[in-house]
Order: sequence, then C-alpha cells, then structure tokens
Amino acid sequence: MSLSPIRVAGISGSLRRGSLNSAALRAAQALAPEGMTIEIAEIGDMPHYNEDLRAGGYPAPVERFRAQLAAADAILFVTPEYNYSIPGVLKNAIDWGSRPPEQPFNDKPVAIMGASGGLLGTARAQYQLRQMLVFLNAHPINKPEVMIGQAPSKFDEAGNLTDETTKKFIGDLLTSLAAWTRRLKAPAMAAE
Amino acid sequence: MSLSPIRVAGISGSLRRGSLNSAALRAAQALAPEGMTIEIAEIGDMPHYNEDLRAGGYPAPVERFRAQLAAADAILFVTPEYNYSIPGVLKNAIDWGSRPPEQPFNDKPVAIMGASGGLLGTARAQYQLRQMLVFLNAHPINKPEVMIGQAPSKFDEAGNLTDETTKKFIGDLLTSLAAWTRRLKAPAMAAE
Amino acid sequence: MSLSPIRVAGISGSLRRGSLNSAALRAAQALAPEGMTIEIAEIGDMPHYNEDLRAGGYPAPVERFRAQLAAADAILFVTPEYNYSIPGVLKNAIDWGSRPPEQPFNDKPVAIMGASGGLLGTARAQYQLRQMLVFLNAHPINKPEVMIGQAPSKFDEAGNLTDETTKKFIGDLLTSLAAWTRRLKAPAMAAE
Amino acid sequence: MSLSPIRVAGISGSLRRGSLNSAALRAAQALAPEGMTIEIAEIGDMPHYNEDLRAGGYPAPVERFRAQLAAADAILFVTPEYNYSIPGVLKNAIDWGSRPPEQPFNDKPVAIMGASGGLLGTARAQYQLRQMLVFLNAHPINKPEVMIGQAPSKFDEAGNLTDETTKKFIGDLLTSLAAWTRRLKAPAMAAE
Repeated sequence: MSLSPIRVAGISGSLRRGSLNSAALRAAQALAPEGMTIEIAEIGDMPHYNEDLRAGGYPAPVERFRAQLAAADAILFVTPEYNYSIPGVLKNAIDWGSRPPEQPFNDKPVAIMGASGGLLGTARAQYQLRQMLVFLNAHPINKPEVMIGQAPSKFDEAGNLTDETTKKFIGDLLTSLAAWTRRLKAPAMAAE
Repeated sequence: MSLSPIRVAGISGSLRRGSLNSAALRAAQALAPEGMTIEIAEIGDMPHYNEDLRAGGYPAPVERFRAQLAAADAILFVTPEYNYSIPGVLKNAIDWGSRPPEQPFNDKPVAIMGASGGLLGTARAQYQLRQMLVFLNAHPINKPEVMIGQAPSKFDEAGNLTDETTKKFIGDLLTSLAAWTRRLKAPAMAAE
Repeated sequence: MSLSPIRVAGISGSLRRGSLNSAALRAAQALAPEGMTIEIAEIGDMPHYNEDLRAGGYPAPVERFRAQLAAADAILFVTPEYNYSIPGVLKNAIDWGSRPPEQPFNDKPVAIMGASGGLLGTARAQYQLRQMLVFLNAHPINKPEVMIGQAPSKFDEAGNLTDETTKKFIGDLLTSLAAWTRRLKAPAMAAE
Repeated sequence: MSLSPIRVAGISGSLRRGSLNSAALRAAQALAPEGMTIEIAEIGDMPHYNEDLRAGGYPAPVERFRAQLAAADAILFVTPEYNYSIPGVLKNAIDWGSRPPEQPFNDKPVAIMGASGGLLGTARAQYQLRQMLVFLNAHPINKPEVMIGQAPSKFDEAGNLTDETTKKFIGDLLTSLAAWTRRLKAPAMAAE
C-alpha cells in the first residue's frame, strides 16, 4: 500500500540571501521522506499587518501566502532567533495568516527547526513560537527538536548543509512530521 | 529641589488609525508626571529587517527610530496582542533597534502596557516582550503591570481614555517608571 | 455504536482542603461526557524529588502516582497559579512522573484548566506548564482554554461550582479532550 | 574607599549530594569578588506549600529560609532544569518565600546560573524563573547569562569546578551582581 502524499508549506524566517535558515529549508526539501514535498512560502513581500489595510481586502502577496498555507497538509517553520524570539517579518506573516475568514493554521500539523551561530540554536525563539501555535490551534510535534547551533560550521560556502548529524536530525524531524500528519488525518479516513 | 527631566520614547505596536493602543499611548502623554515627556516613535515606515539591507546602511526611517531611542532616558511599550505575542511590526522595530554599533535599548529603563478586547489585556504578549528585553539588556519595571482588558468599553469614540481606574493605573505606571529611571541613573550622579 | 471508554487521571495542583482548583476537578468529574471517567491522582504525599532517593527505588506514593498516570488514557491538570507558574508541589509530581523506565506522560493527550482570584485565571501558569509538556512529549489540546478568573464568586461555600458559564467551559474542555484522545488513538486501531 | 559588603543568599535547586548545581554554588562562594559573601540557603527540609499549613504559622525550616532571604542584600539561584523548568523543590521554596507579611524577594537584586548535561545549560528553566521574578518584584541581572552546558566535563570527581572558562563566567556574573546591587542601593544612600 502506498502512503498518501503530504504537501508541506515551508517558511524561512530570514530574508537574507545567504541565510543559513533558508539553506536549512532547502536542505529539508532534499531530505523529505518519500511522499512528502515541501513548497517554500515567501514572506518578505507582505506589508506590515494593519487592520485598516485588511479592511480593504488582503494584498496580493498575503492572498498568495494564505492560499499556500490553506493548500498545505502541514507547515514547517525554519526560524532564526532575533532578540530571543522569532523575527518580526516571520511574526508579521503569522499575523496576516491568522485572520478570517478561514484561518489556515487551524488544526495543522507543524514542525519547527532553526539555525543560529550560538550554542542554543534558536531554542528561545522556538518556545515563543510554540505559544503562538496554541492560539492558532496548530499541532506542533515535540520530538525531535531541531536546534542547529554553531550553524556556520555546518554549511559550505554555497549554502549546502554538510553536517551529517544535522542532516539526520532534519530527516528525523520530517519523518516524525509525516507520521504525525497521517495520524491526525487518519480518523477522518477511518470515519468514512 | 526640582527633579531632573525624563524623556521617554513611546512606541505603539499597532498601525491602525483607530488603535486603542495608540490611544492609550496618547493618554499616557497626558498622564505623565511632572518632569516626564513622552515622544512617540513611529514604527510603520521601516522595511522588514534584512541583514543584506542593513549592510548598505540603515534606511532613513530606521535611523530616525534608532536616534529617538538613543536620545530617550526610558522607553514605554504599548502593545496589542496578536497570536499570543507582540505584533510583527513591533518585533521588526525591535530587530532594527537592537543592532550595532550602539544598541539603544541597552541599560534603558522600560515600562510596558497594552490593551485588548479580552480579559487578559495582552498578558501573553507582555511576557514574551519581557524575554526579549533580557537580550536587549533593558530593565523593565515589574509593578504595576498595566493590562487593559475589555478595552473598547474604556475609550470613547474619539479615542479618549474615559475609564478612571485605567487612568490611575497608567499614571502609577509612569510614576513608577520615573522613580526607576532616576534610581538607575543616580549612581552615576553620585559618583561624580 | 458505543464509543470506547476513556480513563482520565485528574491532578489538582493545590493541597488546601478548601481549594477551588480541587473543587473544579470534582466538578469536572460530574461534567465528564459519557464514556469518560476521571480518577483523582493525589500528589501531596510524595517527597521532594531527589535523584539519590530515586536510586533506591521509587517511594510508594510515587509508584502509585506513576501507575495512575500509566493506566490513564489522558491527563487533566487543574492548577492554581503561584508566582506566575504552577505550584512547586505540582512541578514535583511532574518531576517524579517524568523519569524512566517508562515515562507515563509520553504521547498522552492532555487538558489544562485552572482557577484563581484574579482576572487572568492562571494563564501564566498554564503556558509554563505547556512548555513542560513539550519535554514530556504530551499532546495538550488548544481549545478551549479554561481559565477560571474571580473564582471565589463561582463556587458556593461547600465548594460546588455554581457558575453556569464555567460549567459549560469545563464540559466543552472535556468533550474536546475526549475527541482528541479518540483521534490520537484511532490510527493504532485503524492499523490493526 | 572600601566598598560596602554584600550578603548573598545562594540557593541550589538540586537535593542530590553529588549535584553539579550545588557544586557550582560552592564554586561561586570561592569566586565571589571582594566584599561579597555567599551564604547557602537550604530548601530540602520544607514541606510542600499548603495554605492550610501556613495558616498555623510558618514551619521552622520555612522561617529559617525566609529569614535568610530577608537578611540578604541579593539572591543567587543555581538551578538545574527538570522538564524544561526549575525543579519542583525550588519552586516550592519560592512559593513559601513569596508569602506575607514581608515578601523577602521584594526589590532584591538577583543573579541566575545553572548546570546541565546538555548543550542548553538550563536556558529554558532560567526564562521560566525570570517570569516568576516579575511577580516577586525582584530585579535579575541580564548579563552575563551563565548556562553551564555539558557540565559533567567541567567538574572533577570531588565536585570541584575545573573549567577555567566557566570560572570566568561565574566570576563575571558575581561581579555584575555586585555592581547591580550597589547601583540599586545607591539612591537610598544618596538621599540621606
């Protein structure tokens, strides 16, 4: 029996061209288990969230982002840590994504990873993000937690992930996300 | 003996014209104790933080914001709660403000308040902000904590704060901020 | 078709005889949906966690507590807020419960509620508890969040919950826990 | 001119005889700057906090602990991380310490450190503790943050701290605590 395909929306929290978080997201695309595809959702072209602006209809980049989330079976956040939290631009994307009519994070399986230069590997940002996911009613997996510390030593100059241990962790994260996604979807199938 | 003047940079986390958080900030300007002036620092015109952009020099709105912070003796955050944290646009301002050469949040006294429609009055956002202030090496006051719940009932249609209890809380917050600011500055004066 | 029964271990974080959190837990027992039974797990008779003590074998009250968790299909925490977190005695129970060989919180569905005198109704304690559950690999439900503020006005002198809105919230929480528990268990059944 | 002496109450969150956190606290005693003395406050002999018990008067070990806090100019927490937070026994000590009539944490300068086997070195526990300190109206220093990761490699078999980098961090933490304590006390002296 073949497994049902899983479409993941992957979001990098960094806009920098040479970002190691964006590099880690590309690495994840290559490391995804069979049946899982990761489509990158860009967040840099949305305006700052403003309720007055929303009243006039979602701007086009927001509509695109929201549609990507809605179409996905699961979401993968790859976030740097700025000032012990997630970057403003990533929070801004979440703010736009969280609004009605549909709320596309609702009931979605989520995986989180992040890369930083220090030892903690974005731990502080990840726990703040997890609190946001309570409001969004998303379901983050707990294990493994992928915190890529001392990240510059783990990628080559072209932004390719070269550290085998980190590759293993990312692969395990995605395998866990796939299992969690299928587990959360199963009852609906079973009920048919 | 007259007290030394205190200049506060006041930041509202909402861009909406009719924002109750911006209204609360204006109310704070009127409620400031003698000797304290609150200058509003705008955050809506900064681009999304991007390290590549920063490498080319701070954009003009960022320079202005950073200069306002640097010139202030203390900082007042007035933040809504979006998705159980501070708005992306406010986090983005912090991200720009936190970078070298000078880091203008460093060693600054800080007060926090926020308004929301629910009962919790931005509590969750405020504790996430406090964690960011650890990295920024700022010194937030602990008491009082001003969480303006059920905010729409406490302002009139023109955005004037009408609730006397809330006025009292904001006044107490600013008086506490003034005392804390003078306390943290005193040793330098005493050492002269 | 009748639904499978769900056994819940209910834990109150307060030791006080007249505790409103313990009263809320008793109310939950009466409000549980058909098929769910809530058995109270006592935490007051365990010693302070000490690794040296554990090396000699789990003390009897710890063994009993761990067995109750292991036998449960789901866990219900009812926690007061002390100093913006959960009580030490509740954290101590979690510390004992979290150790090998089996880790009885692992993969368990969890619901959280709490009562306090203030308006926030233990919100701060609940988010700290949620962070602990990441380590424990438990799966807390997100909605509804039951934070019983101004609790003394919602119970009679005998400790009976009299507030209808709160009863409704607790009922909804338990119904949500039942659905989440069955959803997480379904795949195993489907795979047979 | 000689500096005023500073009395610090040092609290280890672990009860284990061979605890590396207790060993780090002993190391801190030896590394304290001139004028600072660190007295260890024991927490293992207090009962679980229970409001009914408190109504009968503080038990003797609680009275002793509270008196030690009250007599101290500053407080040093040395905490392991259990289940992504501080140990229950440490939280229990805080719960007893936080109660009226006097609240001995009030307005106290605080330093935090911790040791763990993993890379994060108790980071998650430390941020949860910082949130508790908001309620307690204590004033933790922000820099340096001392998170002793991979701790077993940094102490010898007798529990002596042997890692020079860690010694330097602890010394810097205590020097920072001394400066912060004198800074917070200065206005009172200046006002005389």
